[in-house]
Amino acid sequence: MFSELLQPDLRLMLLEDDQYGLHEFCLALYPAVAAEVLHGLEPADVWRVLKACDVERQAEIFAFIDPPQQLELVDNVEREHLSKLIEVMSADDRVDLLGRMDEDHVESLLPLVAKAEREEIRKMLSYPEDCAGAIMTTEYASLPEDITVREALDRLRQQAPDSETIYYIYITDSNRALHGVITLRQLILARPGLRLADLMRRDVVAVKVSDDAEEVARQLALFDLIAIPVVDEENRLVGIITHDDVLDLVQEEANEDAYLQSAIEPLENDYLDTPVVTMAKKRGVWLLLLAAVGFITAKVNEGFEGVSSRHDWLSWFLPLVLASGGNTGSQSATLVIRAITVDRSATRQKVRIASHELMTGFLLASAMSAFSFLAVMFLFGRNLQEAMVVAGTIGLVVTMGTLLGSALPLIFDRLGMDPALMSNPLISSLSDILGVVIYFSTAILILEMLL
Amino acid sequence: MFSELLQPDLRLMLLEDDQYGLHEFCLALYPAVAAEVLHGLEPADVWRVLKACDVERQAEIFAFIDPPQQLELVDNVEREHLSKLIEVMSADDRVDLLGRMDEDHVESLLPLVAKAEREEIRKMLSYPEDCAGAIMTTEYASLPEDITVREALDRLRQQAPDSETIYYIYITDSNRALHGVITLRQLILARPGLRLADLMRRDVVAVKVSDDAEEVARQLALFDLIAIPVVDEENRLVGIITHDDVLDLVQEEANEDAYLQSAIEPLENDYLDTPVVTMAKKRGVWLLLLAAVGFITAKVNEGFEGVSSRHDWLSWFLPLVLASGGNTGSQSATLVIRAITVDRSATRQKVRIASHELMTGFLLASAMSAFSFLAVMFLFGRNLQEAMVVAGTIGLVVTMGTLLGSALPLIFDRLGMDPALMSNPLISSLSDILGVVIYFSTAILILEMLL
Repeated sequence: MFSELLQPDLRLMLLEDDQYGLHEFCLALYPAVAAEVLHGLEPADVWRVLKACDVERQAEIFAFIDPPQQLELVDNVEREHLSKLIEVMSADDRVDLLGRMDEDHVESLLPLVAKAEREEIRKMLSYPEDCAGAIMTTEYASLPEDITVREALDRLRQQAPDSETIYYIYITDSNRALHGVITLRQLILARPGLRLADLMRRDVVAVKVSDDAEEVARQLALFDLIAIPVVDEENRLVGIITHDDVLDLVQEEANEDAYLQSAIEPLENDYLDTPVVTMAKKRGVWLLLLAAVGFITAKVNEGFEGVSSRHDWLSWFLPLVLASGGNTGSQSATLVIRAITVDRSATRQKVRIASHELMTGFLLASAMSAFSFLAVMFLFGRNLQEAMVVAGTIGLVVTMGTLLGSALPLIFDRLGMDPALMSNPLISSLSDILGVVIYFSTAILILEMLL
Repeated sequence: MFSELLQPDLRLMLLEDDQYGLHEFCLALYPAVAAEVLHGLEPADVWRVLKACDVERQAEIFAFIDPPQQLELVDNVEREHLSKLIEVMSADDRVDLLGRMDEDHVESLLPLVAKAEREEIRKMLSYPEDCAGAIMTTEYASLPEDITVREALDRLRQQAPDSETIYYIYITDSNRALHGVITLRQLILARPGLRLADLMRRDVVAVKVSDDAEEVARQLALFDLIAIPVVDEENRLVGIITHDDVLDLVQEEANEDAYLQSAIEPLENDYLDTPVVTMAKKRGVWLLLLAAVGFITAKVNEGFEGVSSRHDWLSWFLPLVLASGGNTGSQSATLVIRAITVDRSATRQKVRIASHELMTGFLLASAMSAFSFLAVMFLFGRNLQEAMVVAGTIGLVVTMGTLLGSALPLIFDRLGMDPALMSNPLISSLSDILGVVIYFSTAILILEMLL
């Protein structure tokens, strides 16, 4: 990457204490690139670079620094400087940062922050994590409806420096109630004398302050918006959420879902930035739980001691039989979880989902049964009855897998829990228990009772 | 949803052939909402609704209709009307549609499309799928650098109706070479007499026409952009990709990754819109492959016939032992695949990744070993040596799982294949083979050779 090429130059500037060079560094690069070059530098050095430019620019670059490095920086600077930085940071970035910091540290810092910002921070920190209120920014552009396009453009020029975006302008009354929205594109194209009330769109797509982040992402994506307004219970405009934050959010959720699906507690940091012990904890909890389920399977297995010792060869195919159920179950669980994550209305179609899975399950069961019947007879030279035991079991566990895999996430969702907690390994482990029962019962039936 | 409430009204309008109502329906609703209400209606009815308004509005609504319904509509309308619709659709939406249609149908349609659009369509259809050229739109706003802010705003008013966004304006010369970028916000704030050359940002973040879609998403997300310009090999501006298309793309990729991770060929349509037979094929291919690996495990198992029949109880713990390796392997594979998907530079840190996994593996192996040692002794009443066999094996397979799970995706990536093809079930199946060997070898060593 570009940033790797720049770091040696930056280190040289620091070594030579080249204030002019450091100043240029902060101004010439995109904040995102500057932040990347600063990655891995000592906190004291990062501050020497940042302090070469004004505090507004510092805040812009700081917002692009990784959360773990941000926390390191916060711990290694005077509180006075930090409080200034916090004052000029954009409202959503600063709440992100303060939300991650140690509470005592935040409390010692807030008295130094200007009153207006301090009150806003306290309010935004009070919203529960992952709801619209916690991710919005309060820096939006708004105008009254009774002015003309010409006046609107003049007023917008004054608001612009403090607004996250001026491409959508929200029309509010004196109580901040949201009445409409106008795009800057409309303003540019409209006759200067037109009143905003005659130009604005009145059915504004908005989210509630308590809506969860996934709902925000869905609405913004559905309507292809640059920003979506956030309103309180009385339809008063309290903030906006912009497209870039939603994109970050969607990527984060995709990571979280992928982790949960493989039975890993979501990571807060990047993979290589997560210490080994933290990683072991986030994985170990689930592995131990899965092992506990595995011991139940072992107990059930022990219960069938008789039949398995009379037919030694049964254990050869045990891993295959169990894996077939587990794999099918994982597929079903993933499909159902994605379906209800992407489209909430799918949750109301439980019967359709279950019948869809069941029919797919029958087709899969037939194919898998036929394949394993042939393999057991011709690759392992077992007799007809023995092949029937394996093939019959595989047909049954594949069908059982589709039902289990589709039902469990729906039940979790119904209970108000995250369906993604029904991870693939957990579905597999649970299907193992049933798989053992089905396998040995089928064996007893075909090998010992029918003949 | 809102749309479910509206459909009965719409059906009534159709029944009464209420042209005024249908016209209002098309104009009053957001195109995204109108498209949702049309979901599930017969093609003929959808066309009756759409044709109540002008072709530009038809195109806007059509763009929000699901791909399967779009194809149904395309097959049920006169070619003349379809060609007009295609002419006014935005360049990226129309290439999406034509790319999905039957080739013969496209060829019979293109002669009816106006020459300028036709040539552009042929060019865009020639880009390989999933590269920047295939997802861009050619409707961008561009200006020369030697005009003033005042002139720029005037010219922009003329370009606005044909531009996907006018919030970023690209500065090009007469050869379309990209020299800079200006935001509409800058234009609004700047002195009217200033020349664009003095205002524009010269180091433009751009992607190449052949860059893949993931790279586009990464760049746009990194710089928080509303749109990113696409240039050809000679740095000539050929199109832009907007934030909303990137958001859709990221969500699609998240779905695809989730499917692959659970060994399902990615679906083209929504879950419930995918026919059972298609679904069975997309899952069955992988299940049969996994079953084939399962039969290798069975063969290896058969090879250890002697030791497993001398120690019957070994098979009780076989599912647990294999699941422990598979679960750990799935975790590692997911972590590594996410790490290299999110940050390409992680691929160059193979040694760091491997050592990170190995150390985590040791911690997990110790915890899992200790837990299973106690469980085997006290829950199952086996003796010290027997508990050592199970606990020792679990320690080894957990370590082996982390190595296998992290190495295989990296090897796949190195070979130029999608690392996500190394799905969790495949990692588990491969680790099963090694798991059986480790289990019975440990058993022979501890139970028969040492004592």
